[in-house]
Amino acid sequence: MSDLKVDFARHISSEFNEELEELCADLLKMGGLAERQVRLAVQCQEQFDSALVDQIKEAENAVNAWEIRIDELVATLIARRQPAATDLRLVLVVSKVVRDLERAGDEANKVAQMAQQAHESGKSSAVGLVEVRAIGDQVLRMLGDSLTAFARMDADMALDVARHDKEVDRTYQSALRSLATHMIEDPREIGPVLNVMWILRALERVGDHATNIAEHVIYLVKGTDIRHLSVNNVAETLKKAEDLAS
Amino acid sequence: MSDLKVDFARHISSEFNEELEELCADLLKMGGLAERQVRLAVQCQEQFDSALVDQIKEAENAVNAWEIRIDELVATLIARRQPAATDLRLVLVVSKVVRDLERAGDEANKVAQMAQQAHESGKSSAVGLVEVRAIGDQVLRMLGDSLTAFARMDADMALDVARHDKEVDRTYQSALRSLATHMIEDPREIGPVLNVMWILRALERVGDHATNIAEHVIYLVKGTDIRHLSVNNVAETLKKAEDLAS
Repeated sequence: MSDLKVDFARHISSEFNEELEELCADLLKMGGLAERQVRLAVQCQEQFDSALVDQIKEAENAVNAWEIRIDELVATLIARRQPAATDLRLVLVVSKVVRDLERAGDEANKVAQMAQQAHESGKSSAVGLVEVRAIGDQVLRMLGDSLTAFARMDADMALDVARHDKEVDRTYQSALRSLATHMIEDPREIGPVLNVMWILRALERVGDHATNIAEHVIYLVKGTDIRHLSVNNVAETLKKAEDLAS
Repeated sequence: MSDLKVDFARHISSEFNEELEELCADLLKMGGLAERQVRLAVQCQEQFDSALVDQIKEAENAVNAWEIRIDELVATLIARRQPAATDLRLVLVVSKVVRDLERAGDEANKVAQMAQQAHESGKSSAVGLVEVRAIGDQVLRMLGDSLTAFARMDADMALDVARHDKEVDRTYQSALRSLATHMIEDPREIGPVLNVMWILRALERVGDHATNIAEHVIYLVKGTDIRHLSVNNVAETLKKAEDLAS
């Protein structure tokens, strides 16, 4: 964490102060917990273990508490410090990122619930294990990278996360097609396959949340709002913004 | 809109000013567009029409532009007016609600895309039409009510939205079960039924976003953060908070 603090200090404007630093450190703690939820959820799907479900729920409660706490900190910090410019932008972004982290954790929780249902109803199946592992690994990396990009205010790393999301979408769509084919070939597997589809869907959403976080980082570093642009247009838009600024 | 303005004026603290009023009015305009997206998407699924898809995309572009614009307004308003207490809370909530509206619109867009895919691949099917209509109607009402609750700062109406979400979840789960049964009975319908399942899923998410908006309204009116509480616990928590305050 100490390295990250140095990075914050380098990038935050002169009004940077301890409270702001703490706010970002809290956000990263919350992020670590959300990551943990996703990691455990993927494990839980691979090999069900009720102890993992308990750990996921515990992490979820902590994530939820962090969301409320960080939102309160944001309000207090704005009211007391009246930040402007870059600092204000950072604080407002924190309040957005918090929501994405909480949602990512929610999706992890859904994965765990579905794994539990499949286990309890005896519907567990080896179908889709490869796909869950592949997409799970990808979105976990994206979530981790989006948080590191935030900690380091690294726009290039953030852009990589956004690019990676397109890859996840392709993997996801191709997994859905192959699972649908599997269903048609063996209708007895419809129940288990549907379950895997919902799990993949939840994981794919985790990737979306990581991308949102990455977009916020790019906005903070470059001052350009790239939400709603396609990845191809992002590089072009950033280039234009840089040309205009130079 | 004039009635709503009166309602805002009644509930916003003494620092209430034109900019704040405008911000809320903008949010409601954006909300109206997101509602329109959802309404058109449900229509589009019932009877495909490419003109509807164009209208949805148009509304989506407008919604996306509103999201960025309102976020900018929020930052400008905080920097220039340095709102405190209730006003600050309201402004920060606006920046959260904006995200939920944009996401609700995104889900509508997904519905339209899936309806289009089904139409183009000749996979359109009468399966699930009743379910889509039922859940579509329910979440549209929730979205509308959550915006009205925001406009009027009506916590009771907001609580009804949150309660309604449980009903939508039940309708959704029961629809999924009946669709899965349909798949097993007639595996040739797997493709079209999967399509309907994804559409229902997207609509159910619209209900989630409406619930988030409603929770923010309750927070603004009651000062109690009810996110992450079950609906049953909400009434109890609000009662306790009122007892403590009296």
